[in-house]
Amino acid sequence: MKVRAAVLPINAGKFAVALNQDDAAEIGVSEGDRIRVIKSGKSVSAIVQIAFGLISRGKIGVYEEIAAELNLKDGDEVDIYPISRPSSVEFIRKKLSGKKYSREELYSIISDVVDGNLAEVELTAFVLGSYLVGMDFDEIEWMTKAMIDTGEAIEFEKGVVVDKHSIGGVPGNKVSLLIVPIIAASGLLIPKTASRAITSASGTADTMEVLADVNMSVEEIKEITLKTGGVIAWGGATNIAPADDKIIRVEYPLSIDPRPQLLASVMAKKGAVGARHVAIDIPAGNGTKISSVEEGRKLAGEFVELGRRLGLNVSCAITNGSQPVGRTVGPALEAWEALKTLEERKGSSSLIEKSLGIAGLLFEISGFAQDGYDRAKMIFESGKAHQKLLEIIQAQGSKGILKSDDIPIGEEKYVIESKFEGAVVDILNQRVVRLARLAGAPKDKGAGVYIHRKRGEVVKKGDPLITIYAETAWKLEKAIEYAMENPPIVVSGMILEKYPSFKVV
Amino acid sequence: MKVRAAVLPINAGKFAVALNQDDAAEIGVSEGDRIRVIKSGKSVSAIVQIAFGLISRGKIGVYEEIAAELNLKDGDEVDIYPISRPSSVEFIRKKLSGKKYSREELYSIISDVVDGNLAEVELTAFVLGSYLVGMDFDEIEWMTKAMIDTGEAIEFEKGVVVDKHSIGGVPGNKVSLLIVPIIAASGLLIPKTASRAITSASGTADTMEVLADVNMSVEEIKEITLKTGGVIAWGGATNIAPADDKIIRVEYPLSIDPRPQLLASVMAKKGAVGARHVAIDIPAGNGTKISSVEEGRKLAGEFVELGRRLGLNVSCAITNGSQPVGRTVGPALEAWEALKTLEERKGSSSLIEKSLGIAGLLFEISGFAQDGYDRAKMIFESGKAHQKLLEIIQAQGSKGILKSDDIPIGEEKYVIESKFEGAVVDILNQRVVRLARLAGAPKDKGAGVYIHRKRGEVVKKGDPLITIYAETAWKLEKAIEYAMENPPIVVSGMILEKYPSFKVV
Repeated sequence: MKVRAAVLPINAGKFAVALNQDDAAEIGVSEGDRIRVIKSGKSVSAIVQIAFGLISRGKIGVYEEIAAELNLKDGDEVDIYPISRPSSVEFIRKKLSGKKYSREELYSIISDVVDGNLAEVELTAFVLGSYLVGMDFDEIEWMTKAMIDTGEAIEFEKGVVVDKHSIGGVPGNKVSLLIVPIIAASGLLIPKTASRAITSASGTADTMEVLADVNMSVEEIKEITLKTGGVIAWGGATNIAPADDKIIRVEYPLSIDPRPQLLASVMAKKGAVGARHVAIDIPAGNGTKISSVEEGRKLAGEFVELGRRLGLNVSCAITNGSQPVGRTVGPALEAWEALKTLEERKGSSSLIEKSLGIAGLLFEISGFAQDGYDRAKMIFESGKAHQKLLEIIQAQGSKGILKSDDIPIGEEKYVIESKFEGAVVDILNQRVVRLARLAGAPKDKGAGVYIHRKRGEVVKKGDPLITIYAETAWKLEKAIEYAMENPPIVVSGMILEKYPSFKVV
Repeated sequence: MKVRAAVLPINAGKFAVALNQDDAAEIGVSEGDRIRVIKSGKSVSAIVQIAFGLISRGKIGVYEEIAAELNLKDGDEVDIYPISRPSSVEFIRKKLSGKKYSREELYSIISDVVDGNLAEVELTAFVLGSYLVGMDFDEIEWMTKAMIDTGEAIEFEKGVVVDKHSIGGVPGNKVSLLIVPIIAASGLLIPKTASRAITSASGTADTMEVLADVNMSVEEIKEITLKTGGVIAWGGATNIAPADDKIIRVEYPLSIDPRPQLLASVMAKKGAVGARHVAIDIPAGNGTKISSVEEGRKLAGEFVELGRRLGLNVSCAITNGSQPVGRTVGPALEAWEALKTLEERKGSSSLIEKSLGIAGLLFEISGFAQDGYDRAKMIFESGKAHQKLLEIIQAQGSKGILKSDDIPIGEEKYVIESKFEGAVVDILNQRVVRLARLAGAPKDKGAGVYIHRKRGEVVKKGDPLITIYAETAWKLEKAIEYAMENPPIVVSGMILEKYPSFKVV
């Protein structure tokens, strides 16, 4: 049936169209059924909604996602016909009844995920099937390969390509802004793609964006890596392992992270950028994704095994995730801390130790050096890493800020002081993140927190514990209100004060 | 924030609104987040979509479902504010990690299901949690009670109230059109609510609708039952156990029917209409939901136990579901067969035996008669059941058809003849249903199939096996094409002809 497009500039969150009820009846589709929408040879499958009145007969309401995909304008003619559920849905049902996926089935599912062919219910069933029924290593390997194959990839004809990834969960983790220039300064190549914050206060891409453009194509990533040795790009702007972004949309509202998806998502991204040696940062501790070192070890073993199957040399670092890394949380504050640390060649020991440790691990597993940590320290202290980051920023497209003190931080601020004399006994990651997000991070780049005292440090009554920064006064208010009710920093003695309702996590 | 409604007359399939991107940023919500929408004291929670341009600042695009719920017109002022995920989502996550629900948690989840407070991903997670993790009998009991309590209910001050339900899976199951008048003619009360077809070719409500109006409120159901002894109403038009309809929307695309939901859904509906004695029809056999009598027995035991916990006297009949009941499939054809059988007091033995058997079971468990089957047979053969059905039709609102031969059947038809001499060895339920649906059933009431020969019956070459009826020629074409590729009736000898690709199911 030929119909004319009426663009509905609304993000429906999926490939959806609205059909006039009579047109829908004529082609025999009901709400929730699927049709194929074709425009000049390009086509997508779309979920049908039924319209009464707004969309007249002979028209089709196309939401933003489809309009963008097919490049549709009002009045464009498209062809539509009903289609049945993709066979992927049968495969997903098989998993729900406890069966193992075949290689071909996983490829077909991941392709349909990428092409937007699965409805929300079906995609949720896929993710929950992984979560509740699980996958064995064959399936995880096949899924990872399917995620690589259904996206773009980079191949480096020369050079030793390494990469690092953090599974996340610890706030303030701006280590990539130190690790990438250290590695790049050594002559190895590190084409790092990073994510934006989903539940955190700043993703590495958000932090880097304070200093440089992070929206790059795979061609640009390759070109800049070859030129400067490294890059810090936003993975979401590329078409690398695009299945992952769609899967996250389901995981996020349920706050679940099925192990097979976690493994496949990380390794697909690393495999697709052509890395041969990969270091995985696994933050462990209260308030992170991995609660104990034992659990971290198990996950590390799985990463190494998956790497072996993909031909990647993987090594993991289980890191201390029990409190934020460094002293800042929020895009601008983190960019400031990272750049300042490189400029002054000193700073928060947790930030420097961790960055040098992971850079050193990459030196060791790639065969570049046996004394990896020392080599990383040398490059850091020589100032070469600082110069390299400035070089990378300019290659990516500088925002005009090349000095830490030029970075604009939110002008609204509030200092929380200690009401007691004592020592910091705990910093609660989840409260720190919530606080920074209420203040406006990651959308308001200048919003976030500065932590004056970390665990074990001594405070006197009236000493600053944390400073909240925001770009607008009302967000600062909301953040302060939250912090008063839910203190993110626990000074010894405080816990008893809130009996009986106080909970530490 | 106060905004003005712009009604989008589109069924979004959920409570959704479209916010201008700047307004969304101002109140701090992103796509997929939730807001509460308030109009004159009534409010709903809605999933946010982000609009660019179509919805200007200070406006909110409200889809059909919300416009209807809040009775909104263009320009109406509503109040909105961001809300967090309902705590039900936490409870659902608990189940995903293997825990047992509490009574309060299930009540809260079912309330949120009914109020449209759960996003599709979350509702899917609830259903898959039941399917994969399961529920024990406490949980099933609590869920059933929550489903009853979150909807309307009927209480009969006098009379013995009985009811029947089929778990479905066998085509042509028009037995309620015989059972209800037999029961009603005896003086017992049977306020039967029925469903429309979801995956079948005709639900009892679709079949009854050929003869009478089936859209009734609970007050009308009670009134007509008190007046005539029985009713056959569409449950979906009432507000009885409304959670069920929303849950089905998720089960249907995945073709799953978690046992806890199946049990709760049936028993909630029976409990809510005030029935004290309930007969459950469990069709078993190839191509139905229950593949063996053993499995049927297990399910029967579960129904009886759940009934005991709810104070309902439940008895189950495991019935032969290996081929269609009677000879017709499709709304008008089934209404025709039921009415014809009552008029002539004879007809297909499978239809009559099954109807009398279940009516008899109800007579026995309610203490009305010890020789239930014989009593049902007497009422059937006396013509009182026929008179009673006509009475019920008129009480519900007749469509002007009171004789079977006046029922309009699709005018396009095609007879499939046997190419062999032999005997019918199999009738494939799923193919029969697909055939009837391709011909237009259940939407085209006159579409369906008439089965000339059932299992064990002898055919000569050229004898009619099945006649396909349709309302439009192109749907008939599609049905014929399917039947040629996928013969629904297997005559002995045929199977060998299609080697190697022929599959019986």
